Parts: sequence; structure tokens; C-alpha cells
Amino acid sequence: MNHSPLPTTLPETERTRHRRLREQGSLDRGVLDAVLKAGFICHLGVVLDGHPMVVPTVYGSDGRNLYFHGSVASRSLATSPDTTVCITVTHVDGLVLARSVFEHGVNYRSAMVYGTPRLVTDAEEKLAGLRCLTEQSAPGQWDYARRPNRKELAATALLALPLDEASVKISTGGPDDGDGPDARLGLWAGVLPISAAFGDVEPDPALEDGIEVPAHIAVRAGTGLG
Amino acid sequence: MNHSPLPTTLPETERTRHRRLREQGSLDRGVLDAVLKAGFICHLGVVLDGHPMVVPTVYGSDGRNLYFHGSVASRSLATSPDTTVCITVTHVDGLVLARSVFEHGVNYRSAMVYGTPRLVTDAEEKLAGLRCLTEQSAPGQWDYARRPNRKELAATALLALPLDEASVKISTGGPDDGDGPDARLGLWAGVLPISAAFGDVEPDPALEDGIEVPAHIAVRAGTGLG
Repeated sequence: MNHSPLPTTLPETERTRHRRLREQGSLDRGVLDAVLKAGFICHLGVVLDGHPMVVPTVYGSDGRNLYFHGSVASRSLATSPDTTVCITVTHVDGLVLARSVFEHGVNYRSAMVYGTPRLVTDAEEKLAGLRCLTEQSAPGQWDYARRPNRKELAATALLALPLDEASVKISTGGPDDGDGPDARLGLWAGVLPISAAFGDVEPDPALEDGIEVPAHIAVRAGTGLG
Repeated sequence: MNHSPLPTTLPETERTRHRRLREQGSLDRGVLDAVLKAGFICHLGVVLDGHPMVVPTVYGSDGRNLYFHGSVASRSLATSPDTTVCITVTHVDGLVLARSVFEHGVNYRSAMVYGTPRLVTDAEEKLAGLRCLTEQSAPGQWDYARRPNRKELAATALLALPLDEASVKISTGGPDDGDGPDARLGLWAGVLPISAAFGDVEPDPALEDGIEVPAHIAVRAGTGLG
């Protein structure tokens, strides 16, 4: 693992150059980190027999690598090592309801990361990567739950995609047809915000009496994600 | 547009065969329709210069075709006609917090549709497809807002992906380590549900006084999505 400081700006490449006006494109590493930290589900795109395949899977990001694992996407992962993937993380923040259908849109934050994933074979990095992946969706569980044993570790393929080529697009704000001819139509326009949240915990019916919900899980009920 | 009845079961192909045990795979068309109806954002996977690219975009589904359009994904769409795409729609329903890190998981519903999108050129189908796409995220807006004019229609590339090759995966329920040796660890286990919802409407600051939120929008505030 390389621990030298990362440049704060990502390189602009043919794939990460921003072309459109409506969204705000960013190559700022802090913006990328914020979008990646706000979620734990990505869409992994691979090429399989020449055709694209897009699989949802969990990930963890430590700012240098995006870690993802193999048990949920065995076919796509079998083709991933040494081939390019695109991993996209999207948070949907709202519907932009304009005066005209044409100006309707969606507010969102989305990160796209390109690269060649590396199979993590170093035992120490594998544990650190699995910890990162686990803690991203379930903070506190790495220390609370039983950690992977040797057999489980052997059954898990962990991949690391370096955060070297990536771009972020963020779309915010309201409809922009408020100062054109459509503004005189007398129609309502605005934003219908969208957010995701955790509900109340649902204990496993198989739990024995007297096992309380640990604080690190209980505090998340009712809180937002994204 | 073909209006003959569709078979209720989707064909099993090399790409849509279900291989894993944890999730419930389905080739039932009703299940596919339900997953597609529950959202309006998909992840479109294309191959660009031999590499995968995954772009979030809005879609509409009428049960026969998945419609998506061009202004948000011009580069990927330029390569889409006559090449295969994979469109994935995912709803995240909860975190499965098990007694062991290895058994942690996510409850979700996900549809993957494969095929070659068709550029919609017929004027009648283009309007119907744009209506489908608009109504999927913003029901009522096609009749309320100003519809696309000739110039806007010409500037919009609408693509139709037939729902001929698709599969659905649904993962539900709690952790399944409640009857193994880990059950004796005395650890809490269960599900932390996740849901998305609309918030309160945010009127465009440019709105003139006296323009009320129409009922079809007002009723959505506070309601769930997905």
C-alpha cells in the first residue's frame, strides 16, 4: 500500500472530461471522496464476451482504493482482473419539476471511477480492505461481529480499484425556465426532494432473549443516508 | 409498436440464468415489471472503445420497452444504437447485519435488461415514449406542464430497449446464521431497513405569487419511493 500524499485534483482524461453544461463536473478529490463516502452500493460495469454487464454490489472506499468483493458478482469478477471496469455511485437528491417537460430533470451526485481492479492477495491489505468495505455500510460491525476466519477469507475475492481516474457530476438547484417565456404559463415549478433513510431495526426472530441492539446500530435508525 | 400479448415468463439465456443461492432469481415478467415500476433511475452500461461505461439516467417502462433519452448521456448514446447495452435498476431495501462479518449482506431488488436499443423515429411512438418516461418519475406532469415542441423533440434522442432479455434478483429476509455456531456468540443480529421518500416541495423562487402546488405533486410529499 502506497501512503504518499495524493494530488488534490484528479487528472482529466478522455473519459473524465466534462462535456455537458447542466451538471457541475468536478475532478476535485475531496468532492469524489464525499460522494463515495455517502453510499455503499455501486454499479459495477464490466465487458463480458464483448457486451456490457452492470451489477450492483457493495463497496468501501479509503480515499485511495475502492474495494469490492466477489461473492455477489462472481461472473463479472472473473473477467475483471486485468480488464477495465467502470464503477458508478449515484445518489438521487430530487426531481426538478419545470414548467416544460423538456426542462424536467433530476438532482443527483454521481461518481464514475475507471480502471483495472487489482486482486488483493496481501493478507494485511485484504483484512484492511474487508474492514473498509464492512465499515462503509455497517460502521462498528467490524469490531462487534465475528471477523472472517481463514476459510471465509479464502472464499472471498477482494478487488481494489485505484481512485486514479474518476469524475464526479453533481446536479443541484431548481428548474431554470423561470425567466423565459414558459414563466408566463402560470404553472407551478420547483423541486421534489428525495432522500433515503434507515428505518427501525428488525431483530432476527432467532435471537435469544436479552440480546440488546448495540448502540452503534441503534443510533442509525431514523437517520439519513446518502 | 407490437401489441400482441407477451409471454409471462422471460427466456433464460446465458446472461439471465441465475447462478447464486442467496438471492431469489426470477424470470417472471410481472416481477420484472414491478421492479421497473418502482423506480425511475437506471444505470446504463455501454462499451466505449472496448471499455465499459456506466451512466445513471432516467427511464420509463411500459412493460414492452424501457425508454431512455439522450441529453444526459450523449457519449454513451452515440455508441448505443446497434450495440448491446445492459440497463440495471436497483432498489436497496436494507442492511442484513449478521453475527459474523462474512454473512453480512444487503436486501435489494434489481433488474438487469440486456439488448440492443432502437432509436425511436416514429413521431407517435416518440411522444408516447417521452410521455412514459416523464410519467414514470413525475406522474401527472405530462398533462400539467408544457409538452415538448417540434424543436425540443428534434433535440431529444429517444431510445427503446425491448424487455425481451432480462432477469430480476431479489434478496429479502434476515441473517441466516441464527442456527449455526455463531448463534451462540450472544451477538445481536437483524435487519436495518432502508427506504427512500419524497420530502416537502421546494417551490421555484421565481414563481409568481398565487401559483399553488398542483395536487398531483403535493400528494407525493412524504410518500415513499421504490
